[in-house]
Amino acid sequence: MRLAELSRRSGVSTATIKFYLREGLLPPGHRVSSTQADYDEEHLRRLQLVRALIQVGGVSVADARGVLAAVDDASLDQLSRMGTAVAALPQALPAPADDDEEAPTAERVAVEVQRRLGWRVVPGNPAHQALVSAVSALLRLGYPCDGEALLPYGELAERLAEHELALVEEFAAPTTQLEAAVALTVLYEPVLLSLRRLAQAERASRLLSGGEDPDEAPE
Amino acid sequence: MRLAELSRRSGVSTATIKFYLREGLLPPGHRVSSTQADYDEEHLRRLQLVRALIQVGGVSVADARGVLAAVDDASLDQLSRMGTAVAALPQALPAPADDDEEAPTAERVAVEVQRRLGWRVVPGNPAHQALVSAVSALLRLGYPCDGEALLPYGELAERLAEHELALVEEFAAPTTQLEAAVALTVLYEPVLLSLRRLAQAERASRLLSGGEDPDEAPE
Repeated sequence: MRLAELSRRSGVSTATIKFYLREGLLPPGHRVSSTQADYDEEHLRRLQLVRALIQVGGVSVADARGVLAAVDDASLDQLSRMGTAVAALPQALPAPADDDEEAPTAERVAVEVQRRLGWRVVPGNPAHQALVSAVSALLRLGYPCDGEALLPYGELAERLAEHELALVEEFAAPTTQLEAAVALTVLYEPVLLSLRRLAQAERASRLLSGGEDPDEAPE
Repeated sequence: MRLAELSRRSGVSTATIKFYLREGLLPPGHRVSSTQADYDEEHLRRLQLVRALIQVGGVSVADARGVLAAVDDASLDQLSRMGTAVAALPQALPAPADDDEEAPTAERVAVEVQRRLGWRVVPGNPAHQALVSAVSALLRLGYPCDGEALLPYGELAERLAEHELALVEEFAAPTTQLEAAVALTVLYEPVLLSLRRLAQAERASRLLSGGEDPDEAPE
């Protein structure tokens, strides 16, 4: 397809597509003449991934380039590519600062919860560092937080991951699976956070209104 | 306690405390002379909440003021104060744009999942709007998403909310409970997101390494 059709099918303006091409976020089209290039379904899919990263995930162009480089790195096996791509996504919090006095305790808590869940602990994983920062913030602000307190969150995260990896496996080709894993990681974060807020509102409303949902009251 | 002790106990610099006082994020101390004021445990607690909002939650000073106004609004009952305070926190995504073609479908999906969970649907809740935006993004990017697909996320959110409200109930006074609800809503978001990433890495590593965790292999 030509650039105009790629724009129409993706809902991305031709100016934005040209910008992504220039920034190397989208591979060049197949040249058909000195002024025209042809794009295929792979370009469309990649364009959707770039939009998910930048528009929903708030990922910077530089970070998006890092994520895509990992997705495309043929020197790595599938597992390393997925790990590298997801690790290159922006984290909820940066790693703890050097002068963070609670960091050693937070590190022990983060390791404890993962060990209790039977997970391999990878201290270099940016998500591990983000978890340490989050626990450190809780401790610094006077909210008790130990491995026990985090266990329910870890167990729920485990069930989510199981569900999400099954979704990703529905995509046929390895590259498509990798792209879906990256896109769904980013796109389901706001789903999860907004449902948590709604569930809290629902639960608080039931508790504080002093009892049962009127729908559940006996006739 | 004097300003210096409030600073020492909270780990917040006196300059920052003075800034929070000027911005109305912290109630003034009790005057003991024309140049000195006295602060109590309530100031310390409030200061910790302000830090959680601004430093971990990335909440702006203006938004923090809105959250605290709701916490302190004596004209509202406990339920309305908690609802208003949590709704004033920044959302994962803004409400859908007026020209968002997927918004009507996304709205139906968001309503369907909440109805199936037995939750009251409050379309004006900013978290409801954020959910509609998140679903709309998934649809626009070609990822199928219906009420059924969101159900596992909703069920897990429900279990989290149950756990979190129980935590909040451990705080004795109504105002302390409100402050804890707001702080824990903000502080556990990065915990949840980083554990989800770690769970995905663990799950992917087990699946793609072609089977069992070596720790679980028979001797």
